Amino acid sequence: MIGGGRGAFIGAVHRIAAIMDGQAQLVAGAFSSDPQRSKDSGADLMLPADRVYASYEEMAKAEAVRPANDRLDFVVIVTPNHQHFPPAKLFLESGFNVVCDKPVTFDRKQAETLRKIVAKTKKVFVLTHNYTGNPMVKEAREMVRTGKLGEIRKVVVEYPQGWLSARLEDTGQKQASWRVDPKRSGAAGAMGDIGTHAENLARYITGLEIDELCADLTTFVKGRKLDDDGNVLLRFKGGAKGVLHASQISVGEENNLNIRVYGEKGGLEWHQENPNELIVKYPDRPSELWRRGNGYVSDVAKKFTRTPSGHPEGYLEAFANIYAEAFRAIRAEVGGEPLPEDLDFPTIDDGVYGMAFIETVVKSSKLGAKWVKFPKT
Amino acid sequence: MIGGGRGAFIGAVHRIAAIMDGQAQLVAGAFSSDPQRSKDSGADLMLPADRVYASYEEMAKAEAVRPANDRLDFVVIVTPNHQHFPPAKLFLESGFNVVCDKPVTFDRKQAETLRKIVAKTKKVFVLTHNYTGNPMVKEAREMVRTGKLGEIRKVVVEYPQGWLSARLEDTGQKQASWRVDPKRSGAAGAMGDIGTHAENLARYITGLEIDELCADLTTFVKGRKLDDDGNVLLRFKGGAKGVLHASQISVGEENNLNIRVYGEKGGLEWHQENPNELIVKYPDRPSELWRRGNGYVSDVAKKFTRTPSGHPEGYLEAFANIYAEAFRAIRAEVGGEPLPEDLDFPTIDDGVYGMAFIETVVKSSKLGAKWVKFPKT
Amino acid sequence: MIGGGRGAFIGAVHRIAAIMDGQAQLVAGAFSSDPQRSKDSGADLMLPADRVYASYEEMAKAEAVRPANDRLDFVVIVTPNHQHFPPAKLFLESGFNVVCDKPVTFDRKQAETLRKIVAKTKKVFVLTHNYTGNPMVKEAREMVRTGKLGEIRKVVVEYPQGWLSARLEDTGQKQASWRVDPKRSGAAGAMGDIGTHAENLARYITGLEIDELCADLTTFVKGRKLDDDGNVLLRFKGGAKGVLHASQISVGEENNLNIRVYGEKGGLEWHQENPNELIVKYPDRPSELWRRGNGYVSDVAKKFTRTPSGHPEGYLEAFANIYAEAFRAIRAEVGGEPLPEDLDFPTIDDGVYGMAFIETVVKSSKLGAKWVKFPKT
Amino acid sequence: MIGGGRGAFIGAVHRIAAIMDGQAQLVAGAFSSDPQRSKDSGADLMLPADRVYASYEEMAKAEAVRPANDRLDFVVIVTPNHQHFPPAKLFLESGFNVVCDKPVTFDRKQAETLRKIVAKTKKVFVLTHNYTGNPMVKEAREMVRTGKLGEIRKVVVEYPQGWLSARLEDTGQKQASWRVDPKRSGAAGAMGDIGTHAENLARYITGLEIDELCADLTTFVKGRKLDDDGNVLLRFKGGAKGVLHASQISVGEENNLNIRVYGEKGGLEWHQENPNELIVKYPDRPSELWRRGNGYVSDVAKKFTRTPSGHPEGYLEAFANIYAEAFRAIRAEVGGEPLPEDLDFPTIDDGVYGMAFIETVVKSSKLGAKWVKFPKT
Repeated sequence: MIGGGRGAFIGAVHRIAAIMDGQAQLVAGAFSSDPQRSKDSGADLMLPADRVYASYEEMAKAEAVRPANDRLDFVVIVTPNHQHFPPAKLFLESGFNVVCDKPVTFDRKQAETLRKIVAKTKKVFVLTHNYTGNPMVKEAREMVRTGKLGEIRKVVVEYPQGWLSARLEDTGQKQASWRVDPKRSGAAGAMGDIGTHAENLARYITGLEIDELCADLTTFVKGRKLDDDGNVLLRFKGGAKGVLHASQISVGEENNLNIRVYGEKGGLEWHQENPNELIVKYPDRPSELWRRGNGYVSDVAKKFTRTPSGHPEGYLEAFANIYAEAFRAIRAEVGGEPLPEDLDFPTIDDGVYGMAFIETVVKSSKLGAKWVKFPKT
Repeated sequence: MIGGGRGAFIGAVHRIAAIMDGQAQLVAGAFSSDPQRSKDSGADLMLPADRVYASYEEMAKAEAVRPANDRLDFVVIVTPNHQHFPPAKLFLESGFNVVCDKPVTFDRKQAETLRKIVAKTKKVFVLTHNYTGNPMVKEAREMVRTGKLGEIRKVVVEYPQGWLSARLEDTGQKQASWRVDPKRSGAAGAMGDIGTHAENLARYITGLEIDELCADLTTFVKGRKLDDDGNVLLRFKGGAKGVLHASQISVGEENNLNIRVYGEKGGLEWHQENPNELIVKYPDRPSELWRRGNGYVSDVAKKFTRTPSGHPEGYLEAFANIYAEAFRAIRAEVGGEPLPEDLDFPTIDDGVYGMAFIETVVKSSKLGAKWVKFPKT
Repeated sequence: MIGGGRGAFIGAVHRIAAIMDGQAQLVAGAFSSDPQRSKDSGADLMLPADRVYASYEEMAKAEAVRPANDRLDFVVIVTPNHQHFPPAKLFLESGFNVVCDKPVTFDRKQAETLRKIVAKTKKVFVLTHNYTGNPMVKEAREMVRTGKLGEIRKVVVEYPQGWLSARLEDTGQKQASWRVDPKRSGAAGAMGDIGTHAENLARYITGLEIDELCADLTTFVKGRKLDDDGNVLLRFKGGAKGVLHASQISVGEENNLNIRVYGEKGGLEWHQENPNELIVKYPDRPSELWRRGNGYVSDVAKKFTRTPSGHPEGYLEAFANIYAEAFRAIRAEVGGEPLPEDLDFPTIDDGVYGMAFIETVVKSSKLGAKWVKFPKT
Repeated sequence: MIGGGRGAFIGAVHRIAAIMDGQAQLVAGAFSSDPQRSKDSGADLMLPADRVYASYEEMAKAEAVRPANDRLDFVVIVTPNHQHFPPAKLFLESGFNVVCDKPVTFDRKQAETLRKIVAKTKKVFVLTHNYTGNPMVKEAREMVRTGKLGEIRKVVVEYPQGWLSARLEDTGQKQASWRVDPKRSGAAGAMGDIGTHAENLARYITGLEIDELCADLTTFVKGRKLDDDGNVLLRFKGGAKGVLHASQISVGEENNLNIRVYGEKGGLEWHQENPNELIVKYPDRPSELWRRGNGYVSDVAKKFTRTPSGHPEGYLEAFANIYAEAFRAIRAEVGGEPLPEDLDFPTIDDGVYGMAFIETVVKSSKLGAKWVKFPKT
């Protein structure tokens, strides 16, 4: 693991998600850019001292020369955004599979470079857009795919949070600090951090690609350099329309990612904070509550469920579902076998798409919220 | 009553709302542009034949010459949009107070003319933007007014419906037919019919005025001439931002008007389909469920409630609250007294504002969804 | 109207419900046992002084001798429980139809006497167990009737309120005072006031009759003479089981009447505070949200709806639905025609059943919460 | 691990919960009473063959003689109820700490014997009444403890499920088969399986002990020998009253464990299927939504949370919280240190209490649902 030391949030999430199904173990790490903090964090995690590294460079070097049966199968990158690309490149090129937190890189150019590196090294690269790991999100995608909703007309996707409604960054809170810093976070604030999740979720479920967008980003909290709120109109290829908004100043909201999709024949609604339920809507009969774990859900959703209906699964289980798919790929890669064809995890392509999304919303907003064509990715 | 004959929807609503509190009685009407239908409708309503008129012109004339103690105190106009202005003008100028359904007129020009007529005749003119009659909407406004939420930053207001997701107009359904007809409905479809409610609700609660907007209107159902869906970005005077979307093709949605307002210090959320509850959000403590009829709500909301907490009030009661205020004004006017100063109903100014909203969203959309300044009203 | 003067609650509800559909008008009343209060209340309601009476006896006498086309069609009794029987008897015997609030009388004996009077006078007698006026309650009954749920196995019906969790009666609050007074309320407190609603709702929906019950009533607030909370186990004829509990000390609850019914093939759930929705459950497919006003609901529910789906109707509309049926009966009776055969309102039989319920729960509780057979009614 | 082989449900849950936080590893098991199935299951779990045993007796013997640094720290028992006691006894007496699924034993007598064994061996014994691992359940307990609700008056606790509404046991479904078999399940069916969870949850939150109870158990599905539904009235020591019902024939219900507690000053409500939220109610101010992970929750709840607010945790995380506490005890025991004093997991005492509950409800029901005193435990 690269990053995820003391004071970090997402590192612990990855550790739980990765081991939950008994398929992986944490064996080594460079947990901080501060060598002492890395060391201390490794000790917290009960790792042997010789596999806790002062830097990711040191780690890549040392692990690469370990015997095959005692070296890493993959590395997990959970650093702030500006520190995704360098270790990803290094580990891929050192022969390791990589699991990387989102957004994939600091900017779109890096993402495209990374795509070339992935292609060249032929290693597995997994991007943890974790929300698509939710079984009922997969069910939703299946409904769209199989035509249950008819042609999609409208998508409303939201990601309101409230935790940055005041200057939390001034308190030294680590999560806040780097997210509001353009040097570490990238060109966008809320849009990069969570707007990309909303974009990814919409695309995952509907399969629709953005044709052009019009984004109005705002920095409400004085002194901030990046957006802490953004409202975006979307036009998808094929004629569907969309609204996407994300915010970190929507006071009182926790992590309220949600999506509504309306087609010619039906609609659906899903809320991340109530992830076990998918509401399905019809023009002429009662709405239905599709719930995880029941016999009537599709095999696609069944595959990603651990407990029976009524035993709520949540954020960590969804995250672990991304890992479960990653492990299928990594096991094949490590074993020298061809990758399964039905892998279901976000890839470097999703990463490039996400960076293009960030670039485009920022561009649109800087032009005064004008319509901007979505670039080819 | 003008309009509201057999097959109409909103006429019956007005009749119930107007009499609910025992303060008014239906005494006369021109219920249809078809004289026979008007006659039949009057008979259904148990009106004496001599006060059921073949046309509103005939009615205005006949009623105006009745003795003061036996004539109309006010007239209610519930015709399709293009038939609001002529009777409104005629009755105002014939000395009657007028209650008129929304949107106020066919276009903005008519609305401004009507404003002059109202000013000149000094009659009471009430526009039934009924949703603002909800007690918890009034509570929400009070919270904003008294600063409980701090300065408002973001407003999200939605009005999704699904009833026009297919060509209902082809079945002869009367409500659908005129709404999709630009000659009767005006320049906008969904935006005029329900987008104006969303705009009105947002302005009522927050007091914010739109500075400029960017609207992407769409006609999804083939063959229609007016929008059946629209997504709008808003910039309010003073810096707040907003998202407004309204739709009649959001399949499975009934009448899901809802609003979220986020300020510096707090937020609130209200759903028309669950109108007795207002969710209030804070940065640092649990969200609260404020419910109609409880001792803790403000006097403003208490004034507009008929039953104790837990006895749900709904659409008709909210509508009746608009009438309750209208009656305070009408009673004063009829009695020759000055109008109360604290009247709380939508006026011709709201009507003009609403027509400017329609005009502006249509203009923006026709320009390809460009930002357009909101005109002075 | 008998009762319902200043300070009363349910009188105003009856007045709104009765006139809502333009089918009735308040023309006379004896609004209080205090003649001056009756007079003042009549004036508030804009009644002519000569039809506001000092007592119900005076009213019965005076109204009975008015010409047929200018006398009452029916009288509404909204006094505290102990004052139901005397006016009901008098008006029935004076030739008037009667609408009476629940519970029907002070005790079961009075109820049975009243039943004989109703039978003898052949007047219409309507008991306003208002919750059965809800369209989705009627839909629920229809589902049970048509076998959609299969044979019913279990019923859970609850009516928690919190408004009497402290000694509100000490503050002079009129509603609280008489409800906690055994001389005015009868043998039961919470069980009589709201437990009877729960019983009535369960019986209305399922058609099941209680075979025996075991009731544990409690008085939590010191100094009270009647129960303010009660838990009851039910055994229905035919083998179904039930749980019924009602409370006025369930702090924070408003008027949370709700019911769940489980059959062999399906289940349903309805909440009075969210009355437009009926949740229908299945063993093997998603639960459905059946909502008032949609095309898919049965004719039975459609008949009792005034507005389209998504326009919430509530307590007053449900109450008005009881009146709508009452008016069908009263119109026939006044017109000398046979009563319609499909009338759907609670009758004196429901009243007698309700009084038997009160008697039986009190008896069971006094025996230490032993099982007691439900008497024949 | 004892039990939990192929086809089992709860074994997999324990495995995930135990390893989630990286504090334990599965190293050995006797996964089935069928040696081959045990072997196969062990292979599925990637255990070395020499630590997969044909029987728990073999396992106890073999593990006991392994070197201290390479033997089990604890054993987990996840067999059907009738197979809890024998391995628990054996492993405790062989010097191992034990984690055991609920209900603790086949009958109350066994439970009391086991209590003596625990006392004598001084080993750690943990009973996985998992729902009390939920952070918001702990918050609820804290609220009661600190007097926020005042003296408790009423408790309503429910556990409706629908999965046994038909004869699932006839299909060979393993979970169903043993649960309806009195030889494996014990004296009660639904009441033993899930009624005990309801009882445990109520006692955990309120601290109230049952004084006497009246239970009406029913077998709705023909041919079953044990109850599949039960309704219980409770009288707690100190005067509070309660209703407890559990069911496996409540068609359409998943795992709807929920509780409402009403005190003199406040109330609370928690639903297992929406576990991140606790509704807190007051007599005179708005209800509040207390949500896991926020700054305002107590330290007690904070301690048992892995992710920030809005990142839903669920069943597995709650289960893992029981393990987290178990590990604190086991680590101390294995290290020869005194156990921490603030341990928070269900113990053998809870097990004995639960068995007394089962015994008492069955006794009451057999007497025709008479009141029966709760025995001393």
